[in-house]
Amino acid sequence: MFAFALGLATRARNGALLDVYYPLPVFKPEADVAKALAAAPGGNAAGVRELTDRDLETLARAFSDVGATELSGVARACIGAHGPCLLTVLEADAAIEHIAEAYLKLHLLSWRHCLPNSLNLDGIFAVLPNVAWTSSGPMAPAELPEQALRARVRGELLKVHAVDKFPPMLDYVIPRGVRIGDGSRIRLGAYLGEGTTVMHEGFVNFNAGSHGPGMIEGRISQGVLVGAHSDLGGSSSTQGTLSGGGTERISIGENCLIGANAGTGIALGDRCIIEAGLYITASTPVSVLDDRGQEAGTFKARELSGRSDLLFLRNGRNGRVECRTNRKAVELNEELHAHN
Amino acid sequence: MFAFALGLATRARNGALLDVYYPLPVFKPEADVAKALAAAPGGNAAGVRELTDRDLETLARAFSDVGATELSGVARACIGAHGPCLLTVLEADAAIEHIAEAYLKLHLLSWRHCLPNSLNLDGIFAVLPNVAWTSSGPMAPAELPEQALRARVRGELLKVHAVDKFPPMLDYVIPRGVRIGDGSRIRLGAYLGEGTTVMHEGFVNFNAGSHGPGMIEGRISQGVLVGAHSDLGGSSSTQGTLSGGGTERISIGENCLIGANAGTGIALGDRCIIEAGLYITASTPVSVLDDRGQEAGTFKARELSGRSDLLFLRNGRNGRVECRTNRKAVELNEELHAHN
Amino acid sequence: MFAFALGLATRARNGALLDVYYPLPVFKPEADVAKALAAAPGGNAAGVRELTDRDLETLARAFSDVGATELSGVARACIGAHGPCLLTVLEADAAIEHIAEAYLKLHLLSWRHCLPNSLNLDGIFAVLPNVAWTSSGPMAPAELPEQALRARVRGELLKVHAVDKFPPMLDYVIPRGVRIGDGSRIRLGAYLGEGTTVMHEGFVNFNAGSHGPGMIEGRISQGVLVGAHSDLGGSSSTQGTLSGGGTERISIGENCLIGANAGTGIALGDRCIIEAGLYITASTPVSVLDDRGQEAGTFKARELSGRSDLLFLRNGRNGRVECRTNRKAVELNEELHAHN
Repeated sequence: MFAFALGLATRARNGALLDVYYPLPVFKPEADVAKALAAAPGGNAAGVRELTDRDLETLARAFSDVGATELSGVARACIGAHGPCLLTVLEADAAIEHIAEAYLKLHLLSWRHCLPNSLNLDGIFAVLPNVAWTSSGPMAPAELPEQALRARVRGELLKVHAVDKFPPMLDYVIPRGVRIGDGSRIRLGAYLGEGTTVMHEGFVNFNAGSHGPGMIEGRISQGVLVGAHSDLGGSSSTQGTLSGGGTERISIGENCLIGANAGTGIALGDRCIIEAGLYITASTPVSVLDDRGQEAGTFKARELSGRSDLLFLRNGRNGRVECRTNRKAVELNEELHAHN
Repeated sequence: MFAFALGLATRARNGALLDVYYPLPVFKPEADVAKALAAAPGGNAAGVRELTDRDLETLARAFSDVGATELSGVARACIGAHGPCLLTVLEADAAIEHIAEAYLKLHLLSWRHCLPNSLNLDGIFAVLPNVAWTSSGPMAPAELPEQALRARVRGELLKVHAVDKFPPMLDYVIPRGVRIGDGSRIRLGAYLGEGTTVMHEGFVNFNAGSHGPGMIEGRISQGVLVGAHSDLGGSSSTQGTLSGGGTERISIGENCLIGANAGTGIALGDRCIIEAGLYITASTPVSVLDDRGQEAGTFKARELSGRSDLLFLRNGRNGRVECRTNRKAVELNEELHAHN
Repeated sequence: MFAFALGLATRARNGALLDVYYPLPVFKPEADVAKALAAAPGGNAAGVRELTDRDLETLARAFSDVGATELSGVARACIGAHGPCLLTVLEADAAIEHIAEAYLKLHLLSWRHCLPNSLNLDGIFAVLPNVAWTSSGPMAPAELPEQALRARVRGELLKVHAVDKFPPMLDYVIPRGVRIGDGSRIRLGAYLGEGTTVMHEGFVNFNAGSHGPGMIEGRISQGVLVGAHSDLGGSSSTQGTLSGGGTERISIGENCLIGANAGTGIALGDRCIIEAGLYITASTPVSVLDDRGQEAGTFKARELSGRSDLLFLRNGRNGRVECRTNRKAVELNEELHAHN
C-alpha cells in the first residue's frame, strides 16, 4: 500500500467535495496497520469511501488492536463529525483521479513524507475544484453571494481569504520546527523541512520547498527545491518553468544565497551566490572569470546550470554579467566547453 | 439613470458611515426597473436614502411586478438587517460626494459593469473614511482600542486585517471565473475579467485590472489595465503614474509578458516582452535593434510607449538596454523618428 | 522607572506564556503614577507579576487617586479577564529576560514611545516563543493538531494566520494616523509615524519603521528607519544587515525615493533617489558624476553611504551604475577622497 488516511471533507450544497483534511496521513503503512484497514467497508482496497460513525468505531478498535494508538485516536475523534468522513487508500503512486487523492498527496508533501517532484501529480489541476476559502470554511464560489448577504444581514462578516484550487498549508498541516510569517503565502503541498523560516515576503507553491534549515524571503515556484542552509533574499525569484531545453528542473543546492530582488532561471549547485538585484535567465550571456579574474569565455547561463561555487554579479562599471569561480582559466575553459 | 443599488451599510458608533455592501448593483437599469424604484421613499431621484423594512417590502413587490426577480430577492433578504439599509441612485457619472456613491462605483468596477478609467472617480479619496477592517467587520479606528481590549478580556481575538480606505474586493464582490491566491491584495474596485488568475504575489489596485484571461503575479497599479492573454511575472511592477509627459496612462496590451521582478513605466502594445529583472522607466535610453540585430537608434523608452511586437532586454555583455523588433532598420528608423 | 504596563496574557496548556497584550503601556511614568503602582503586590519594583481581580480593583483606585483616569479604566476593564493579567515593570532599559518584557518593549516601539534602535533588545529572540497565531488567538504550535481536528469535527475552521515569534502589530497596537493595506506584513514592534501609509506590498519588521509621513510599498528591514516624506517604491528593499564594514546601520533620510523593485545596502542621506529596478549594494562600484555630468571618479557605494542629494541610476547605454550630484567635479573629488 502506497498511502492511506482518514479525512474530514467539506461538501458544497450540490454535494460536490470541496476539500479533505487528513489529520494523520500514513505513508507506506506497515503490514499490520494496512491489514487493520480491512475492518472498514471496502476493506483496504484502493479508493475513496465514506465512513459511518459505526465504521469509525470499528476502525478505531482495529487500529488500537495493532498498537496504532494515534490513528485509533483520530478515528475516534472523527465520530460525530459535522461533515463527511472519508477513508482514502492509494495502492500505488498513480495519476490523480479524485479530489481526495489530490488532497492526500498534498498532505504527504507537507507532512514531509515525500519530497517535491517525487510524487505523480498528473491530473491534479483537473481534479481540484476552485474553492472560496472563507472564515466559515471552504465554500463553492457560486454559493458565496447568498452566504455573504446572509452574514451581512446578521451583522457579521463572511471573510473570503482566497478563491483558489489550493488552500493555505497552515490550515491543514503544521510542520514541526518552522516559522512562517504569513500563512496565506504557503500552499498546501509545500514541503518545509525542519528549521525553515519563511518570512512574510516568502512564497512556497505546492510540490516545492526547502530542505531546511534556511531563510526563505523569496518565491519558491512549483517544482523547485532549495537545499539546506540556503537563503532566498526578499522577493527573489526562482523560475517554475523547466530550464536548459526543458529537460532540467530548477533546483537550488546547499549553502546558496540568492540576493534580494534577484532571480534565477537556471539550477544552482552548492555554495552559489547571485547578487542582490540580478536576474539570471537561462539565456543570459555570462562572462566567466577564473580565480584571477581572467575571462575564460562567455556562456549562456544554462550552460552553467547546476554547477557549484559560482558567484554571479553584474559589473557596476560596464553592466556585464559576470560569474566568478574558484578555478583556473584553462581548466575552467576546458571543463565548460566539454559540455557544449 | 446611470446606476442604482440596495446596500447594507456599517455605521461607526458616532453614526458615520464606514462602508456599504451592495449585493446586486444595477448599471444603466432598464426603464421599468428604474421606474419600479419610484415605490421607494425619495422615488428614483438621485441620492442616498435609508430604507425601513416596510420600504424594502414595498420595493421587493415593485421589483417583482416588473420581473426583476433577483432584485426583489435582495430587497426581501435585507429586511430585518442588523445595520442600516440604503438605496443609492446615481443619475449620472458625476464626481463623488458621498461614501455610498464611492462604494457603488467601486462595486460597478469589480462587477465588471465598467472598465477601469471609464468612471468619474473624482473626490473618492476625500469621501472614503479610513476604516479598520476587522474579523468583526468594519470599525472606526478610534473605536479599536476599546473593542480590542474587550475582546481580549473575553478571551477572544479581534483580528485587524487592515486599516485602509479600501476594503478587500473579495469581501464585497466575487467575480465569476477568477482565481485569487491572496484576497488581501485585491482592493474593492479592481476589475478582474473572466479567466484572470491573481497569484499570491499579485496585487490589483482599485480602478485597475485585467481583461482576462491572464496570469497576474505582479502589481497592477491604479489606472492600469492589462489586456487579454498577458502575463505579469512574480513581483513585476507597473507604474501607476502617468507616462510620456503626463498625457498617457500606462496600459498593457494583449499577449504581453512582463518577466518576474521586471517593471514598466511606459505603456506596452500587443505581443511585447520585458525580460525578467529589467525595469523600463519612461526615461530609460533604449537601443532599438531591427530584425537583423542592426541598431536603428537610441530612444527614450517613452518614445516606444504603446507600440506592439517589442522585446526589451538588457544585454548581458555590455549592460545596454535593447529593444528588438520584427522590422527592418530603415523603416523602423523613419517610423520612430516620425514621432519625435 | 523606565516603563510599566498592565497586560493580558495567553498561556499554552502547559502553562507557558505565549504573548502579552498591553492596552496602555506607560513610558517613563510621572512620579505619582509610578508611586500609585505601589498599591499592587510586589509594589513598583522591577519584574513581572500576575494580578488578581482584587489587585486590579486596588490599582484602579490608586490610579484614579492620582488622576490617571485612562490607566484606571484599563485596570478596571481587565477585572474578570479570561486569561492571566500581568503587571510588568522595567526599572531600566536592560537586556530582555522575560517574554513580558519583550512584549512591553515591542509595544513601546509601536506606540511611538521609543524610536527603532533606541531600545536594548538583547535577548529578544531567545525569550520569545514560536507561536501559532490563529483565529482563536495565540496557541502553542504543538497544540494545533488536536485543536484543528476538534474545530473541523464541529464544522469550523481554525484559521492559522502565521507561526512566528512576532505577531502582527495591528492585533496589539493601532497607531493614529496611519493606513495599512495588509496587516499581516507589519510585525509588532514596528514604528509607524503619523502619516505613514504602508501599501499591501510594504513590509515593516520590528525595531524598524518610518518617521512619517511617507508612502511605504517596499520592505523596511530590522533596524532600518525611514525619514519623513520619503517613499519606498513597490517591492523595494532595504538591507537589514550592517553596511560599510559593519559599523553603520542602514537608514534612509528625508525626501528620498527608492524606486519600485530597487534596493539599497547603504544608508541614504536626504533627497536621494535610487531609480526603479536598481539595487545598490555596499560593494557596487559607482561612477560619480558632477553637476555637469563629468566623472569625478569611481567609488564603492559604501563610500557614499549617508550622503545627501544623490541620484543613483544604471546607464541604459552602457550598464554603468552612476551617481549624479549637484556639486562640481573638483570639489566633489576632493570631498569624496577625503574619506578614503
